[in-house]
Amino acid sequence: MLDKVLNAKSVAIIGASKSKTKRGYQAIKTLLTDGFEGEIYPVNPKEDKILGLNCYKDITDVEGEVDLALITTPARTIPGILRKCGEKNVAGAVIIAGGFRELGAKGQELEKEVIAAAKETGVRLIGPNTSGMINLKTSMNLVGIQNVPRGNIALLCQSGNMALTLITEAMILKHEGFTYYVGVGNEADIKFHEYLEFFRNDPDTKAVLMYVEGMSQGRKFLQEAYNTSIEKPIILLKSGRSATGKKSAGSHTGSLAGISEVANRAYERAGIVVIENSDELFPVAETLSSQPVIKNNCIAILADGGGHATIAADLLSDYGINMPELSEKTRSKLRKILPEAASVVNPVDVAGGTDSDPSLFADCARIILKDPHVGGLLVVGLFGGYGIRFEESLAIGEEAAAHRFGAMVKKRSKPIFVHSLYGSYESHALDLLRHYDIPVHDSLDISCKCVASLCKYGNYLKSYHGKTNFVFDWRAKAREQGKQIIQNVKKEGRHVLLEHEAKQLIQLHGAQTSVGQVATTEDEAWEIAKKIKGNNERVVLKIVSPDILHKSDAGGVKLNLGSEKEVRGGFKKIIKGAKVYNPEADIRGVLVAPMAKQGLEVIIGTKIDEQFGPVIMYGLGGIMVEIMKDVTFWVLPLSPTSCKKILEDTRSSVLLDGVRGQKGYDKKSMRKLLSMCSELIESYPEIDEMDLNPVMLYEQGLDVVDARIILKK
Amino acid sequence: MLDKVLNAKSVAIIGASKSKTKRGYQAIKTLLTDGFEGEIYPVNPKEDKILGLNCYKDITDVEGEVDLALITTPARTIPGILRKCGEKNVAGAVIIAGGFRELGAKGQELEKEVIAAAKETGVRLIGPNTSGMINLKTSMNLVGIQNVPRGNIALLCQSGNMALTLITEAMILKHEGFTYYVGVGNEADIKFHEYLEFFRNDPDTKAVLMYVEGMSQGRKFLQEAYNTSIEKPIILLKSGRSATGKKSAGSHTGSLAGISEVANRAYERAGIVVIENSDELFPVAETLSSQPVIKNNCIAILADGGGHATIAADLLSDYGINMPELSEKTRSKLRKILPEAASVVNPVDVAGGTDSDPSLFADCARIILKDPHVGGLLVVGLFGGYGIRFEESLAIGEEAAAHRFGAMVKKRSKPIFVHSLYGSYESHALDLLRHYDIPVHDSLDISCKCVASLCKYGNYLKSYHGKTNFVFDWRAKAREQGKQIIQNVKKEGRHVLLEHEAKQLIQLHGAQTSVGQVATTEDEAWEIAKKIKGNNERVVLKIVSPDILHKSDAGGVKLNLGSEKEVRGGFKKIIKGAKVYNPEADIRGVLVAPMAKQGLEVIIGTKIDEQFGPVIMYGLGGIMVEIMKDVTFWVLPLSPTSCKKILEDTRSSVLLDGVRGQKGYDKKSMRKLLSMCSELIESYPEIDEMDLNPVMLYEQGLDVVDARIILKK
Repeated sequence: MLDKVLNAKSVAIIGASKSKTKRGYQAIKTLLTDGFEGEIYPVNPKEDKILGLNCYKDITDVEGEVDLALITTPARTIPGILRKCGEKNVAGAVIIAGGFRELGAKGQELEKEVIAAAKETGVRLIGPNTSGMINLKTSMNLVGIQNVPRGNIALLCQSGNMALTLITEAMILKHEGFTYYVGVGNEADIKFHEYLEFFRNDPDTKAVLMYVEGMSQGRKFLQEAYNTSIEKPIILLKSGRSATGKKSAGSHTGSLAGISEVANRAYERAGIVVIENSDELFPVAETLSSQPVIKNNCIAILADGGGHATIAADLLSDYGINMPELSEKTRSKLRKILPEAASVVNPVDVAGGTDSDPSLFADCARIILKDPHVGGLLVVGLFGGYGIRFEESLAIGEEAAAHRFGAMVKKRSKPIFVHSLYGSYESHALDLLRHYDIPVHDSLDISCKCVASLCKYGNYLKSYHGKTNFVFDWRAKAREQGKQIIQNVKKEGRHVLLEHEAKQLIQLHGAQTSVGQVATTEDEAWEIAKKIKGNNERVVLKIVSPDILHKSDAGGVKLNLGSEKEVRGGFKKIIKGAKVYNPEADIRGVLVAPMAKQGLEVIIGTKIDEQFGPVIMYGLGGIMVEIMKDVTFWVLPLSPTSCKKILEDTRSSVLLDGVRGQKGYDKKSMRKLLSMCSELIESYPEIDEMDLNPVMLYEQGLDVVDARIILKK
Repeated sequence: MLDKVLNAKSVAIIGASKSKTKRGYQAIKTLLTDGFEGEIYPVNPKEDKILGLNCYKDITDVEGEVDLALITTPARTIPGILRKCGEKNVAGAVIIAGGFRELGAKGQELEKEVIAAAKETGVRLIGPNTSGMINLKTSMNLVGIQNVPRGNIALLCQSGNMALTLITEAMILKHEGFTYYVGVGNEADIKFHEYLEFFRNDPDTKAVLMYVEGMSQGRKFLQEAYNTSIEKPIILLKSGRSATGKKSAGSHTGSLAGISEVANRAYERAGIVVIENSDELFPVAETLSSQPVIKNNCIAILADGGGHATIAADLLSDYGINMPELSEKTRSKLRKILPEAASVVNPVDVAGGTDSDPSLFADCARIILKDPHVGGLLVVGLFGGYGIRFEESLAIGEEAAAHRFGAMVKKRSKPIFVHSLYGSYESHALDLLRHYDIPVHDSLDISCKCVASLCKYGNYLKSYHGKTNFVFDWRAKAREQGKQIIQNVKKEGRHVLLEHEAKQLIQLHGAQTSVGQVATTEDEAWEIAKKIKGNNERVVLKIVSPDILHKSDAGGVKLNLGSEKEVRGGFKKIIKGAKVYNPEADIRGVLVAPMAKQGLEVIIGTKIDEQFGPVIMYGLGGIMVEIMKDVTFWVLPLSPTSCKKILEDTRSSVLLDGVRGQKGYDKKSMRKLLSMCSELIESYPEIDEMDLNPVMLYEQGLDVVDARIILKK
């Protein structure tokens, strides 16, 4: 219920001032200049009037209702002020002051106090440590940046400077603007996902543009993003991925910058368009807020000469966009109107055909857009600058073409993008294009990124509808037994499961694993081994002791044993070794299990990410993980579709299908195991980390050879 | 000797015209407007005077000397005109017309004719299919773009539109400009490397900026680039790397766009700064033409708030630039002048410290640049915009800081870069920075790329001085015997060496390989095998026939044989299988060789690249090559240093050092083998392709298990 906060009808400025350099003056000035539609109440015990408005000694003195308080006073004053706001039933407060969590322990204490005051009073907080917020619809500008353009993008930003950058860019481009700007600051109370939900429900917001350094409730954000992105696009840049970047982010928002592999993969899965290059952030948001999506991932390029077309083709190709062959019909039509030297395949090059009449661009565009293979058109080169570069009179033909471009876009719902190296010049033709909401850029890189993002978002929407919702197969009975295992471990004051306990737990949930049995005597070991050997298998012995976690270091593992002599000898050596290694160790026995056959080694791990909660790591074991770092991270839970996608998500994934004449591996069993991991972590919130390493994957089936589960302390 | 061409003192315009839309009019107009210092001779049989200048019927009618002819007439007229130019002793000609190689077979014929005419007459050609050339020093503008800024960058461009883009960008940035622009066009006569040599010798040119789609003599270019880049930086964007991009490039310059792995690696080895993003091309050239290089790869960031610093740190980190810790002395000095909330580690964040007086930026910069760990400074944020954003009077402090920045840069030879989100606004402080040659950008991405490029170039210069020249150990005797082997193959009308021939050849040059011996009878096979088995080795049998290249397909390979029965049986089966596979086959016998022990598989291949000549591919065999495509391509020859670097050039290279407790492999032998390959390909120009696959690398030594050498047809 942020409506009363973000759409406030009355604002109190606590810390109002007559001094022009003070925030408490500028804020009132801006509200007056921008023509805020609601009430403004300056609050300062020492003043009577500020900028012609009555000034109140205290917020409780205000007669009317106060929806929102802008607090410009220092950090230490905040808890007291919030209590006053509570008395007055203020819905929300924007806290500008820094000096909280971002300063370390001392600031953290103060921030906790602020949060407590908010909880107690019911006042919702924006910030602290924020540049403020703007509602462009009611001209409630609490930041003091002048001339912020109004439009349909909501801006959610964790750096005041980045907000200023994006707003400045919008001002220079003179095209699209904003519905809201919110500086989330330290995210002490209102979280990213709450703002996002508000923007999802705001009918004027067509896209949400975000700059994030780190978020405290990533998991809730993902859920909300997933709900939002199907309705309106979210464009996001996540910074703080490098060590130095993290340090820098931490020093001013006090956030934990997350692991970027986890974050970007998770964001994309939630349908977010992730941007890595800050120059591209605003143009992509502008594109996605205004253009019909491209659903077939197919683009045609129209150029008036080489160079630009070649570079554009390279870039789009890097982004995975198709540049389809044009149909014979399209090509023959183009041939009729273009000179012989022209290229009528995609990219189309007019080869001087437009030199005497640039309106020919529109003829070409019409023909190309009619082609059923083409989902959108990117025009690259000099369009809009013929009147500047060659002959003033040519501008007329460009303007005619611009009007026709506008009509085409409207009729066909296929977007046109225009790169023009004259994009930053005064050009009426280009202004006309902008009028028709056609994205114009003077950077090829940015034009291509916009095209690619529109395709990417289109691909997501398409795949979304193919998605199946999934529900957990809770396996109630398994859970009852599983809980028992965990409780037993806890009862003993342990937080690490013994190998056979971990294996029993995953087996309960359907994982294929040879648990084996614990032998306490040499005789028992041989009895168990005999049974296993009945299946013509060799055995492995491993020490069972809560005090020996690194079994190999204690000589606690003997592999590939067959004969009675070997098994009995192995048992004795292990027990002896363990006692030498740690005379105090509580030795429970020796685990006797079948020796796993060599298969394709897979590693699975789960942990609790500070931002996103439970995440899973998957990769092919051995060299692929250790040397090539060829692993992927996904946020849990996993749907059946996700389990499939994970398997395709590493470079080495083709090995699963078999190479060099080998047969493929049992992907179905692998998917089931991943699904089991997801279910398990969801079922037992007690689990902190789980490692299945290695898992041997075979042509048929698999074997979890070693399992390790650590509970939260 | 391009001096007379590019520094022409007199220009004839062949195809001069009175029609304003014609190139033959515009060219004369531009020469007059720009104030070309030399003579201008219009040539057109139908006119007497053009723009007040005498018009000549024929170039031979001109009384004075003509250094350069600009030919604006159509393609088919060119050969005739060139002969006339030859009569007049014209040094060079710029051929604007398209319609040559880029149009396919027919155009190619015409281009050959043009080249022949040039050879015959000694006239050197720029183009054809070019937008022309400009010498800014003498105002010889043969392109017709107005107001091209003069400066110290030479522009070498294979697309007229990209040249126009870069020139337009220079005009907008109003900072740096050009010495020359040359549109190389189809590169029919004068090649990239010749222009480069000219620019290397031009004292006014401080950097060379290149846009390349494909070059015909890449190898000569690399040599020249290597000579040039140590004296002045070369900045290059290579396009046409994608399939569609290649098609596009081919359709308008008729060049073969090269394999980008080969090209980029080769360019970088020659010291070229390779750029992938066209927006970055000009700014990086500007930086490298004007800034002192950074030699220690270390940058400090100075910011007035978060966001920008975080993004910059991420980007620089991606580029491999170090952001060093500041010394305790530096930090304590900063602490004294900055507010408590400031971050005095790198990135430094003034945290509002500059709000009331932005001249504090200069104080901070001075302290930071004095730190011996810091090689250069990147200022990010609002600098230059305080007067715009907050209070007009703050501009004074910014201007004071700008002057001090200028003095610092001069004194310390450590560059300062300024990112300002007000970079495209009117700001006197920013103009002052530009005056002091301090790079100013409103894009963080571009600022960071400029910093990174300066570091990269500095790293190259540093590594260059550590390089050792190397000479080939020609092994004269080996070459004599090697030639004999190749001649024998040729004599038989073959162009593929048999396995044992290939192995003999590489063994002659010092490669470790078990050649084995050819047996023509079962008895012989067993005799040879016995000798090999004397060393306790098993053997492998392989069919020897010039008509059976895919030996396994013909059942022609038997591995791991030991007993007499196995060897004799193998021999019989191979001969029988071969006869079935190809009854016409010329069967020379069966190669009996020791069975190679398993080692680390390596693949080496060489081929002749169309642009760069001999290149070598290296990678770890098996999965690493087949699945992970983890290979590297280098242009031959290889110096000892290069052989070392190649081994480190794949992601999987750590395997060479041994992982998972294994011992490392014999890298010295591997380096020797690579060096041998380089020497071999250089020694025998007859070789087209060579494949050593697999090579088994051991803890000690290696074994080239299979070798294949194909001669040029």
